[in-house]
Amino acid sequence: MRRWALVALVILVSVLLLATTSTTLDGPIALPGYSAEQARAERDWEGKFRDIPTPDNLRDYMKRLSARPHHVGSPYDKDNAEWLLAKFKGWGLDAHMENFDVLFPTPKERVVELVEPTKFVAKLQEPPIAVDPTSNQQAEQLPTYNAYSIDGDVTAPLVYVNYGVPEDYEKLERIGVSVKGAIVIARYGHSWRGIKPKVAAEHGAVGCLIYSDPRDDGYFEGDVFPQGAWRPPDGAQRGSVMDMPTYPGDPLTPGVGATPDAKRLALKDAKTLTKIPVLLISYGDAQPLLAALKGPVAPEEWRGALANTYHVGPGPAKVHLKVQSNWDTKRLNDIIVRIPGSNYPNEWVIRGNHYDAWVNGAEDPVSGTVTLMEEARALSDLLKQGWKPKRTIIYCVWDGEEPGLLGSTEWAEAHADDLRQHAVAYINTDANGRGYLSVQGSHTLEKFMNGVARDIQDPEKQITIWKRSHLKQIADATKPEDRQEIRQRTDQRIGALGSGSDYTVFLDHLGVASLNLEFTGEDGGGIYHSIYDDFYWYTHFSDTDFSYGRALAQTVGISVMRLADAELLPYDFTDLADTIHKYVDELQKLLKDKQEKISEQNKELEEGLFSATADPKEKSVPPSMEEVPPHLAFAALQNASDALTRSADHYQKGLDKLTKDGSLVLNGAVSIEAINTKLLQSERKLTSADGLPGRPWFKHMVYAPGYYTGYGVKTIPGVREAIEQKKWKEADEQIGRVAQVLQDEAGLIDSAARELEGAQK
Amino acid sequence: MRRWALVALVILVSVLLLATTSTTLDGPIALPGYSAEQARAERDWEGKFRDIPTPDNLRDYMKRLSARPHHVGSPYDKDNAEWLLAKFKGWGLDAHMENFDVLFPTPKERVVELVEPTKFVAKLQEPPIAVDPTSNQQAEQLPTYNAYSIDGDVTAPLVYVNYGVPEDYEKLERIGVSVKGAIVIARYGHSWRGIKPKVAAEHGAVGCLIYSDPRDDGYFEGDVFPQGAWRPPDGAQRGSVMDMPTYPGDPLTPGVGATPDAKRLALKDAKTLTKIPVLLISYGDAQPLLAALKGPVAPEEWRGALANTYHVGPGPAKVHLKVQSNWDTKRLNDIIVRIPGSNYPNEWVIRGNHYDAWVNGAEDPVSGTVTLMEEARALSDLLKQGWKPKRTIIYCVWDGEEPGLLGSTEWAEAHADDLRQHAVAYINTDANGRGYLSVQGSHTLEKFMNGVARDIQDPEKQITIWKRSHLKQIADATKPEDRQEIRQRTDQRIGALGSGSDYTVFLDHLGVASLNLEFTGEDGGGIYHSIYDDFYWYTHFSDTDFSYGRALAQTVGISVMRLADAELLPYDFTDLADTIHKYVDELQKLLKDKQEKISEQNKELEEGLFSATADPKEKSVPPSMEEVPPHLAFAALQNASDALTRSADHYQKGLDKLTKDGSLVLNGAVSIEAINTKLLQSERKLTSADGLPGRPWFKHMVYAPGYYTGYGVKTIPGVREAIEQKKWKEADEQIGRVAQVLQDEAGLIDSAARELEGAQK
Repeated sequence: MRRWALVALVILVSVLLLATTSTTLDGPIALPGYSAEQARAERDWEGKFRDIPTPDNLRDYMKRLSARPHHVGSPYDKDNAEWLLAKFKGWGLDAHMENFDVLFPTPKERVVELVEPTKFVAKLQEPPIAVDPTSNQQAEQLPTYNAYSIDGDVTAPLVYVNYGVPEDYEKLERIGVSVKGAIVIARYGHSWRGIKPKVAAEHGAVGCLIYSDPRDDGYFEGDVFPQGAWRPPDGAQRGSVMDMPTYPGDPLTPGVGATPDAKRLALKDAKTLTKIPVLLISYGDAQPLLAALKGPVAPEEWRGALANTYHVGPGPAKVHLKVQSNWDTKRLNDIIVRIPGSNYPNEWVIRGNHYDAWVNGAEDPVSGTVTLMEEARALSDLLKQGWKPKRTIIYCVWDGEEPGLLGSTEWAEAHADDLRQHAVAYINTDANGRGYLSVQGSHTLEKFMNGVARDIQDPEKQITIWKRSHLKQIADATKPEDRQEIRQRTDQRIGALGSGSDYTVFLDHLGVASLNLEFTGEDGGGIYHSIYDDFYWYTHFSDTDFSYGRALAQTVGISVMRLADAELLPYDFTDLADTIHKYVDELQKLLKDKQEKISEQNKELEEGLFSATADPKEKSVPPSMEEVPPHLAFAALQNASDALTRSADHYQKGLDKLTKDGSLVLNGAVSIEAINTKLLQSERKLTSADGLPGRPWFKHMVYAPGYYTGYGVKTIPGVREAIEQKKWKEADEQIGRVAQVLQDEAGLIDSAARELEGAQK
Repeated sequence: MRRWALVALVILVSVLLLATTSTTLDGPIALPGYSAEQARAERDWEGKFRDIPTPDNLRDYMKRLSARPHHVGSPYDKDNAEWLLAKFKGWGLDAHMENFDVLFPTPKERVVELVEPTKFVAKLQEPPIAVDPTSNQQAEQLPTYNAYSIDGDVTAPLVYVNYGVPEDYEKLERIGVSVKGAIVIARYGHSWRGIKPKVAAEHGAVGCLIYSDPRDDGYFEGDVFPQGAWRPPDGAQRGSVMDMPTYPGDPLTPGVGATPDAKRLALKDAKTLTKIPVLLISYGDAQPLLAALKGPVAPEEWRGALANTYHVGPGPAKVHLKVQSNWDTKRLNDIIVRIPGSNYPNEWVIRGNHYDAWVNGAEDPVSGTVTLMEEARALSDLLKQGWKPKRTIIYCVWDGEEPGLLGSTEWAEAHADDLRQHAVAYINTDANGRGYLSVQGSHTLEKFMNGVARDIQDPEKQITIWKRSHLKQIADATKPEDRQEIRQRTDQRIGALGSGSDYTVFLDHLGVASLNLEFTGEDGGGIYHSIYDDFYWYTHFSDTDFSYGRALAQTVGISVMRLADAELLPYDFTDLADTIHKYVDELQKLLKDKQEKISEQNKELEEGLFSATADPKEKSVPPSMEEVPPHLAFAALQNASDALTRSADHYQKGLDKLTKDGSLVLNGAVSIEAINTKLLQSERKLTSADGLPGRPWFKHMVYAPGYYTGYGVKTIPGVREAIEQKKWKEADEQIGRVAQVLQDEAGLIDSAARELEGAQK
């Protein structure tokens, strides 16, 4: 699973330094959190590391891992697990398998047919393509389906709902169309797919089809596979529709590891199954259904690239949808590799990528899995040469990510207490492509990742990956003031994390500072979660020479080493405080915009604007008068944000006094261990035990996937979603809670700063 | 010809007054330029007028006029002319025919074929449709072709150029694609069609195809004919490609009437024929050509709605294009109807609409022609009842508009001296639809048209057409400050006139204050200039009950009467001055934006942005370093604009002193005739004998069709186009010329104001 197409291209990199094949350094040697001597040693090891990963290995691993379909519970998934385990062991690493037993439905019966006004039966089948050698492994392929759809058998008029997100239903209301008792057809995109049946059910629909419009990842974008990278007419996007914004992982064991003896909910009590049956279809199967719709012509921005007029319905198209699954329990095989720390074994740097796929999954996830493997091989090499990481490093290869982040969630829930105590950071990757480094994650690590990116060479250009994405951000900026900020700010901003991959449990449930890294922006294509995501496709249309795979292994491996070897944990709080300040400004603007919008709409209702501009030949329903949103008590949040800024400055000043030429100069009075122990809790402090309103599993008060976006992040989610959903009382309550969490964070940082000052006495 | 789809929805109407079927008035009686007594009498006559036009008559006229194809020189065009003449005469009006002999090429041979990599021959034929009774008149239909394309026979690789406007070629340069030696294929829209071959030829293309993409007026927009209003696969848009922004009218007689004995250019010396052969095709014929292109995928905003990936080329598609015409001279039959004025016979109010069509032309132009007929019938009725217009009224029904505004241009050129001396205003209509009144024209008439629109009832709503479009403008505004202006300004802004219909010679060549009126915004469709623009289509998909046809007859008829009967000519200069001020601000912003854009681009070139962000797998060419545009001497224009504002205020103050409760109260000292004689020259003063740079036929210094837009207006065109084309010296020169013209206008208005003051002594 990958935040495909939603990936906010937020990205990093450098002005100087380092050809990829060389260990010579021509930039500053100093590293934050390191003494001069330690930095020199670290850079030597990093230079050695950088030379180890090879494109040929990445290619070989990919060929093997993607040779056959390998979804959760399949023979080849198990085969891959054993092969991976053997590989790590073969490199001399301490690797083992951990198992969990999870609910994983697979299809028993699938029917989609148009029954009125004409008859058409969807084929629900991706055909083999002659030039693509693995596309014919039909016996092992999972059929196209949406995992965790409830069983159902419904026949009802069809309504086209665009992307099926809440705004789309507002629009439907304006044109007088209801989905009550209807089957909706939504196109993929603009939200995580599980949102579509959830919102449809909230509006009274009885079934949900999801299809891939060629506008979004088919011929509109480019030539279709196998001539090009994009989705062919029968290509279909499998995927989970579990209600992950409520909680990810095994639906039967929320909050606890799905060990064999765990207490499980009855299937009927699982809260994250859909409320209505759901099935995805290809655009080949969707076209006859859409072409049979009448009713209002869809709003312009709803229209896709099929060669027909997009109507909304309802009907006269009537559809029969039947979905039935085998509700089986499957065994997950997570692979865990442990490199013990020499100085601080109880501080853990964790690195993960999943290996299960929907089918062959060369891009998703194998392009990421293979970089993780090369990193592990390179680290094992360094260990043999005498490198001794100060902290414990844990490499994880997750099973069961695709159905619902199962492998990572169950493992982290099972080890929650240890992780809360010991975890320094979690670094995730998933599918990888070509282009620019995208960095999303905790803003305590923003400065750190800017530092790493300044030390990695772009494989295509004679500049670092930092410099390249810096220039890309300038190129993409539309406002002069945005360009000015990008040019003047020392660090590139990193994006906040929503959901869509294995970092979710670490960041959102446990409060472990997390990062998600990938190269993207020059890739693209339409094979996501289809049988055509395979070795043939990847080696013809994506990172064909694996040069960005190597760059990713270098970027992540060096990040892991630099975190593991630092004397003082290299968290930074000034970028965090700056980011929080920005979010607080955004929230105030969000409210103000809503107030102005509703005031204007009320005025227009009074003027008679809606009835005057309605075309009598088209149905339209004016909005209702609404109360203008009240002012919210933002002061507590503003004060807390200011306190955070002061504490960050305090910490930075303390640190500056212990720093010379960028390197740490400690005296005997400072207890680095005591400071690190405090710093280790700095992300945990941003969580609240009660979690978010209505979804207590999500405990981080600054980041969460949106309840109605699924992948897309909502920052300061308690407040933001309350405003979006017009819950004014809840918004004020959440302001108070978030302010308290930020004040506590400021307190922790101040106390770490005082420890630093103590050192100077 | 109609500014289809380009129509800037600029629109008007009223808070009070008048049901359409009633003559009772409940608003103020006063009318600008009228004494209280005259206003009361005028309103009585207007009330009588308002009741006369009937939808049934409009329908009957349309059925007759559109019964058979009636392009210039065709038997049914002549038949219509004689029928129209007989009609006017039958109503007791003084009507006659005026003839001109013009160059009008018609097709002899047309070939479009794909010769590589596969073979495909375009059918270039619109098939009859069974339910549409006039679509099978193939013997009389003009084949699909572009009039005034030169003859040619070329075979060359194909390049897709989007809309084929200058920005599109800049984009092609950035992706390293040249059209030199190629045949380009451009889609209709975003410029007048004649611009496409002109720009293509400037860039070295040897041929030009123009096609109707279903994105723009086909199935993307709605169901296609005959199920819906939109363009079917084989529907094609005929049209002229004469270089009208150089001069419209007969290519052989620029500047003079094409009377039988006029001196004519040799065909080879005609400046307004195309430089390369051009032919339009349907999307049915275009698809195989576009699908055969390879090369870069077209930029996203270039992609249409055909079910293939849009590539740019060049090739491998190679196309053979052959065009040959019969270069014949045809006779035009303009119908001129004259109602002599009782008080001021030498002041002429002129009203026109054309009657020739490309084929049956029910919408374009017959929906407008029939409203003109009902106005004339209604006026003849009033004359019989004793109404005596103070000024002379001239109704014109133009022939030959479609090929190049031939009938109006030749007539106005032939009567240029008289028109310069006598014309008060020219009011044009062309095709009419449903929705909102669109008003474009001279800003001296902005306040006047706001007044008329406040007195006409919308046929669909219980409000005036002024009120309805006022609310529509609020609904369409995207910025709060725009909504505020719309709500606070007394008058609705009217759009400026570019070209595309018969007002062009009056406004742009002769400096006659002009208006173009239509109802639009709830119509739409894809039959423009095809055989399907006929009675069946219009009565199924446009103003099906002719209620907006009646509203247009009321609006225009009352405008004509109110202009003809006013004691003091109701020009207003405060709205004009306000508009000029806005244009001068826009020009300064245009320059500033260009300076900033080029500075930024130069900075990005220095930073290495373009090479850093170029995908090595795609061709891209960075822009060149450019000199930042100099500052221009705008002061002269600002001073002139201020002088105009002062003179407008001066005139308004003078007028206010002669006004009580909105009505004129004259004393013996004022010579209304002397003032009117000055006012009559107020639009003429905005012209300059030398005309615009490179196109001296266009003499108006405030309004002109853009040299590279064709229909779309460029206001203060000498300065604006010099800035757009980076001719800095010319821009400064033009600033001086426009400033002088505006100072002269201010002088004239001041002198009229002094006449008013004289009256108060």
